[in-house]
Amino acid sequence: MADKRKVGLLGGGQLGRMLIEAANRLNIQVNVLDVEGAPAKQVSSHDGHIAGSFKDAAAVKRLAQASDVVTVEIEHVDTHMLENVSGEVTVEPSWRTLRIIKDKFAQKQHLKSHGVAVAESVDLEGKGMEGLKEVGTEFGYPYMLKSKTEAYDGRGNFVVRSAGQVEAAYKALGDRPLYAERWADFRMELAVMVVKTKDGVLTFPTVETVHEDSICKLTYAPPRHVKKETAKRAQELARKAIGAFEGKGVFGVEMFLLKDGSLLVNEIAPRPHNSGHYTIEACPISQYEAHLRAILDLPLPEAGLRLREPAIMLNILGGNTPDSHIKVANKALEFPNASTHLYGKGEARPGRKMGHITVTAPTLAAAEKEIQPLIDLVDDMKGKALGPNEAPRKEDPLVAVIMGSDSDLPVLRPGLEILEKLRIPFTVRITSAHRTPDWLREFSKSAEETTIKVIIGAAGGAAHLPGMCASWTTLPVIGVPVKATHLDGVDSLYSMTQMPRGEPVATVGINNSTNAALLAVRILGAADEDVRERLAEWMKGNEREVLRKDRQLLEDGYAVYLKGMEK
Amino acid sequence: MADKRKVGLLGGGQLGRMLIEAANRLNIQVNVLDVEGAPAKQVSSHDGHIAGSFKDAAAVKRLAQASDVVTVEIEHVDTHMLENVSGEVTVEPSWRTLRIIKDKFAQKQHLKSHGVAVAESVDLEGKGMEGLKEVGTEFGYPYMLKSKTEAYDGRGNFVVRSAGQVEAAYKALGDRPLYAERWADFRMELAVMVVKTKDGVLTFPTVETVHEDSICKLTYAPPRHVKKETAKRAQELARKAIGAFEGKGVFGVEMFLLKDGSLLVNEIAPRPHNSGHYTIEACPISQYEAHLRAILDLPLPEAGLRLREPAIMLNILGGNTPDSHIKVANKALEFPNASTHLYGKGEARPGRKMGHITVTAPTLAAAEKEIQPLIDLVDDMKGKALGPNEAPRKEDPLVAVIMGSDSDLPVLRPGLEILEKLRIPFTVRITSAHRTPDWLREFSKSAEETTIKVIIGAAGGAAHLPGMCASWTTLPVIGVPVKATHLDGVDSLYSMTQMPRGEPVATVGINNSTNAALLAVRILGAADEDVRERLAEWMKGNEREVLRKDRQLLEDGYAVYLKGMEK
Repeated sequence: MADKRKVGLLGGGQLGRMLIEAANRLNIQVNVLDVEGAPAKQVSSHDGHIAGSFKDAAAVKRLAQASDVVTVEIEHVDTHMLENVSGEVTVEPSWRTLRIIKDKFAQKQHLKSHGVAVAESVDLEGKGMEGLKEVGTEFGYPYMLKSKTEAYDGRGNFVVRSAGQVEAAYKALGDRPLYAERWADFRMELAVMVVKTKDGVLTFPTVETVHEDSICKLTYAPPRHVKKETAKRAQELARKAIGAFEGKGVFGVEMFLLKDGSLLVNEIAPRPHNSGHYTIEACPISQYEAHLRAILDLPLPEAGLRLREPAIMLNILGGNTPDSHIKVANKALEFPNASTHLYGKGEARPGRKMGHITVTAPTLAAAEKEIQPLIDLVDDMKGKALGPNEAPRKEDPLVAVIMGSDSDLPVLRPGLEILEKLRIPFTVRITSAHRTPDWLREFSKSAEETTIKVIIGAAGGAAHLPGMCASWTTLPVIGVPVKATHLDGVDSLYSMTQMPRGEPVATVGINNSTNAALLAVRILGAADEDVRERLAEWMKGNEREVLRKDRQLLEDGYAVYLKGMEK
Repeated sequence: MADKRKVGLLGGGQLGRMLIEAANRLNIQVNVLDVEGAPAKQVSSHDGHIAGSFKDAAAVKRLAQASDVVTVEIEHVDTHMLENVSGEVTVEPSWRTLRIIKDKFAQKQHLKSHGVAVAESVDLEGKGMEGLKEVGTEFGYPYMLKSKTEAYDGRGNFVVRSAGQVEAAYKALGDRPLYAERWADFRMELAVMVVKTKDGVLTFPTVETVHEDSICKLTYAPPRHVKKETAKRAQELARKAIGAFEGKGVFGVEMFLLKDGSLLVNEIAPRPHNSGHYTIEACPISQYEAHLRAILDLPLPEAGLRLREPAIMLNILGGNTPDSHIKVANKALEFPNASTHLYGKGEARPGRKMGHITVTAPTLAAAEKEIQPLIDLVDDMKGKALGPNEAPRKEDPLVAVIMGSDSDLPVLRPGLEILEKLRIPFTVRITSAHRTPDWLREFSKSAEETTIKVIIGAAGGAAHLPGMCASWTTLPVIGVPVKATHLDGVDSLYSMTQMPRGEPVATVGINNSTNAALLAVRILGAADEDVRERLAEWMKGNEREVLRKDRQLLEDGYAVYLKGMEK
């Protein structure tokens, strides 16, 4: 870069390492304060690193003197040391922000005071075992007992499931500064990486996070089966939460999506975060590069925080043998869309974060399919079997075929066979416009939130089905007019083609479900070359067949040919 | 990785640096032989590097002793040194391959003997100026005079344009080992990165390369306006060319696409190559990671060499001031999809490769639009103005609207206005099925090779236009039946809907070009969320309008409302 500013970094673990990977590409020097050979130092060779602990005030001072901006890869730092050096060097994010966030109770109170939805919480510091019992009475069981500080990856947390567990909980955490949180009955966990720059607050896409034993196991970008509107609300909540803090840099915001659809902030991390690893491959600008740009006031266009492709991240943890993590990493090399990251850490203690794998693919369904064997392997390493409810899913449908009545099914059969032949996953449903109008409405309105890209609707007579469907969705709707008892199908044809301006139905010939299916294939093919090639191959087959017949007609003469047809 | 094998690398420039970025993620140690502080060494801190020159036999020997596999980032190495160490360490690719390839004349002879198409060439070593004149007589002018060795980025090449230039050419290159090549009258240059593994020969996608002053300036993946069939042929030619060599690793294959559509191999590089930089962001597995996997016999699934998104790479060269390259890099930060790589090199001599920028985007057209200001800046730095034929292009059309006669245009107007309103780029053409059948055929057959994703065809009467078009393309075709003189448009409607099974036309209502346009938007929207959101916004506008009218009707009563309508 044009300027020669140097970044000082407290901590040199995997987050620091990936930050330096981004810094290397921009030729930005990062001075790391950590022990010799720390993961971050392995990928950065210059004389500005400092050997020592980020808990040593003298070392922090030396780092500050050697750097223009000081930042952190961990929030469990002594913020007084940072406050002391903040006169001589810029600290990002602000030590004030770090001080609030590293105390989880203070963090929640701060968010609450800024109107950000969080779980209800009660201070228990100095209240002894009696305090824990009182909270149980107030919140009911289960509730969450947490250490205010130094709690991460499940350490320092205790789920108090009944009054009988209070003693055990107190025994486990009683020597720490405690608070309690009301239990959040959530449907799933979401997370958003947020970037605070000199100009504003930007957000990466919303992801789903899956935890196991309180450690992040998987992230899905975008989240599975979550409405776009919900994902947007999560981004807005995350933006609001981080807007409540001073300073620049990236922040991880973890949230609960409750069963009633509302969102609560669970926790904030004032640094790059596990739930943002996927951004390295999936986004034009990664969380690490975004952090550097934010703390150095370099340009950061929000459009670069988009998803190139859906992505799933799987953590590689230390397992039940010292080389479990190596086995997972080696296996990942066999999967074409898997990017493997190993962190260069020493001993692989069970549960220690040793690396991660990110799979990106044109669809989330394809990414899920590809990563499943790796999830299975990780579970095997832990000795965890596939649960009874976790049977591998069928491929998600791209086409929905709906009909007003099962009597339309025979007409649809040739079309369904074409979809099968061209390997297009589809679903067939009965949704009558007149007998089940609400179900048709629900189906049509939610179709966009699924993997469905095209809808084929078959109906006869008044044939309102595809027209109504088109009125409730922005997806392309294809109509197959079915020949009913009277009027030879012209009634159905007119019902579909003559839709008012605004809600088109792509109408094909009467009873011609073949063409409806082929039209759906063409529509999918407009954006998917594989599909287009399968279609071209199929069309060539038809061409060859006609040419073959023509040759035979020429060879046999029409009389013989006609005889052959009579057989 | 599971094994602890170490890679030894001759040369530590930008290619070595990017190779190490990939190695770091897999925790593979790469020992670099180059001067202290070389670009590759800056991103790798361990005690296995060797300071010195890859031209020093003792240093090469030390590198071999410290490594399990030795590879190169440059082919201008002393292959005898590698031959000497090949008894004690694996050398990939083979020193025999490096020896053939580093001599460009031997390279061409080798390829020719293996049936690979190359430009005709003549040995001129020891033939003096007389030899150059004889070649001029045999090949005609211009022809290409080249040094067999140590020629790259245009150095060691001379285009001999006339007999009068022979003396100047001989003066420039006469002290080198020379050969001549027949001039290749090419339409454009293509390149393919190839990976040779223990199991076979794999290829990355075909890219277009644009050279300026004989230095690679840009690569386009996929190439612009090149048929898929041609791109596949280029991959096959590249695969065949590399199949002719021993050893493992990635190879860059540069080719000419001649004006008659045939392909010639121009040059081969036995290492990662500038034309493969785009793979870092655009492919799940980059050329660098592919090289490591190939030389270490790690799994390498070819499906991982696909494009995630179209990509354009722009080199950042040293410019007319010492900080020109920094200005380009800084400017690139303002573009959301631009990934910037600076190589950590010292002085920026004009033409020296200091870094590169890769833009990936959902379409090549979007990538072109985004990178254009950066190309302009690079040209400015060189003092190059936009040529008269290089006016910025209009956005490429996504929809083609065709009609049998200009008399159909008034019917199409409302549809065209919708496309404009929803910001869908389109093109309108007259292509009569009966009066210009050949033009319609040509248009329909080539539509897929352009940016067009949907075709709207309007016709009246016998109305063959959309049906014929659908027979020559796999793109979705929408039909607008136009009401002609007789039969109220039902004739046109039937001509379109009643297509035989196999070639569907998505038919909308008679004269309803609005719905044809909206259907095209839905089809584009199935794969493009931006488009879908614009459509949803527009539909909401319609909903609000009807609800507004309903409120007014309720407030005014029907009598007043009717009076308002009479105005």
